[in-house]
Amino acid sequence: MNGPKVYLLDLGSMVLDGYMMYWSHGPGGAFHFPVYGVLIDHPEGKFIFDTGFDKGFIDRTFGPGAATQNERQTLPGQLDLIGIRPSEITHVINSHYHVDHVGGNKFCTHATTLCHKCEMEAFTSPEPFEKPGYSDRDIFAQASAESGVANDIYTPQHEFLTGDQEIAKGMHLFETPGHTPGHYSLMVELADRRPMLFTGDACYTKRNLDQNLISSAHSDVKQTYASLERLRRLTEKYDAELFYSHDPEAWKTWRPAPGFYS
Amino acid sequence: MNGPKVYLLDLGSMVLDGYMMYWSHGPGGAFHFPVYGVLIDHPEGKFIFDTGFDKGFIDRTFGPGAATQNERQTLPGQLDLIGIRPSEITHVINSHYHVDHVGGNKFCTHATTLCHKCEMEAFTSPEPFEKPGYSDRDIFAQASAESGVANDIYTPQHEFLTGDQEIAKGMHLFETPGHTPGHYSLMVELADRRPMLFTGDACYTKRNLDQNLISSAHSDVKQTYASLERLRRLTEKYDAELFYSHDPEAWKTWRPAPGFYS
Repeated sequence: MNGPKVYLLDLGSMVLDGYMMYWSHGPGGAFHFPVYGVLIDHPEGKFIFDTGFDKGFIDRTFGPGAATQNERQTLPGQLDLIGIRPSEITHVINSHYHVDHVGGNKFCTHATTLCHKCEMEAFTSPEPFEKPGYSDRDIFAQASAESGVANDIYTPQHEFLTGDQEIAKGMHLFETPGHTPGHYSLMVELADRRPMLFTGDACYTKRNLDQNLISSAHSDVKQTYASLERLRRLTEKYDAELFYSHDPEAWKTWRPAPGFYS
Repeated sequence: MNGPKVYLLDLGSMVLDGYMMYWSHGPGGAFHFPVYGVLIDHPEGKFIFDTGFDKGFIDRTFGPGAATQNERQTLPGQLDLIGIRPSEITHVINSHYHVDHVGGNKFCTHATTLCHKCEMEAFTSPEPFEKPGYSDRDIFAQASAESGVANDIYTPQHEFLTGDQEIAKGMHLFETPGHTPGHYSLMVELADRRPMLFTGDACYTKRNLDQNLISSAHSDVKQTYASLERLRRLTEKYDAELFYSHDPEAWKTWRPAPGFYS
């Protein structure tokens, strides 16, 4: 097998007020943004970084209109474009446990999920203000109630990590907390191009980086700014290309699955 | 002389987006709110807690429309209603150094200003995100440049405090950080009524308290929630009445100067 291939999976879109995207700056009004996952088809396994949202759950929890997703924009729908079944996924990496980053985990029935140890702690015992972001806790409580089986978050196997980690050759998790207490960004080294650095929600959009604006969704202000600065330094150090988590303009310029980067 | 009298000084109004008032909740749109100061005419001196904004500076810095204030709503205009000259003020207490709480300090030419030590440190070396709130730094830089005299913040005499403090009989400063690093709330005990607890920006409005919502203007999320909880406990402990800093509905129900509480 050759080197890794990276696929960007279109998992629909959501909308928030502009003041949520750009803390204390706005402008206000509806801001529509993409939600995507990343498949890394790697010699050591098939990894997915973030799995989008569960449309039915979002509709029930936040009201219809908060999210848009057609059948093709589900995780199975996107993997089908590439000819992969969800059960073939070996690892799911969650940048963090917010509801729009974990909704497709449940399809990956044979995967091990990876997340930062601090993220699991925050998810398990959230501060009151953290509960809306972590409302996916209810998905799992509901699934447990329905199945009668204690349904731990996400998949039968899971590992909690700390510190920066190279989880497979050329796949680096970097600690970027502040948006949530245990947030990870992911950098993937490829054979024929610059490394791809997936910011996760440590940086929603290019404007956040360029104007040094954090989002309103943060658990710690200073940590969030420090992580934004860390992304800048990593970009420089590795000559990496940044892939923001929720940037509608940047998204248009990227190559969606079944196209890939290698 | 009898016990203290407390006067609420109408210092105009400002407008912010609803997402600034209620972090991550809104609703968005223009939210107009009062800005006021408190005169405590006390046997030990004439104290003012917060002095509003400088309209000319706000217009130049944030654009016209951000603030409304007529001549009667300046600090001298309000004191004139009571028959007091600004030079008679013995102490100015600033809950914190944000631009809408210090704009009238300059009129109190014979006062000692009191503030928390941590507030002066944050004001002197602000994080980038703290600079807009502390833009009054420019007022003093400008005043220094014009006069040729190093114009320290506010008045010729100043004291920086730490910890809770009873600064005069029945006048209690309580540490309530989070909105800014060195924020104080003030409680005044009176002869014939419940103590008055002036929250400062540790609590903008009754809705913030009732729904446990902090404002978007914060330097530390968890500290801000802890201070909101502290205000609840203080209210209960002392059977105090809360006076929020920027609540348009509550403001309508209070007694403005020249009326007073005693």
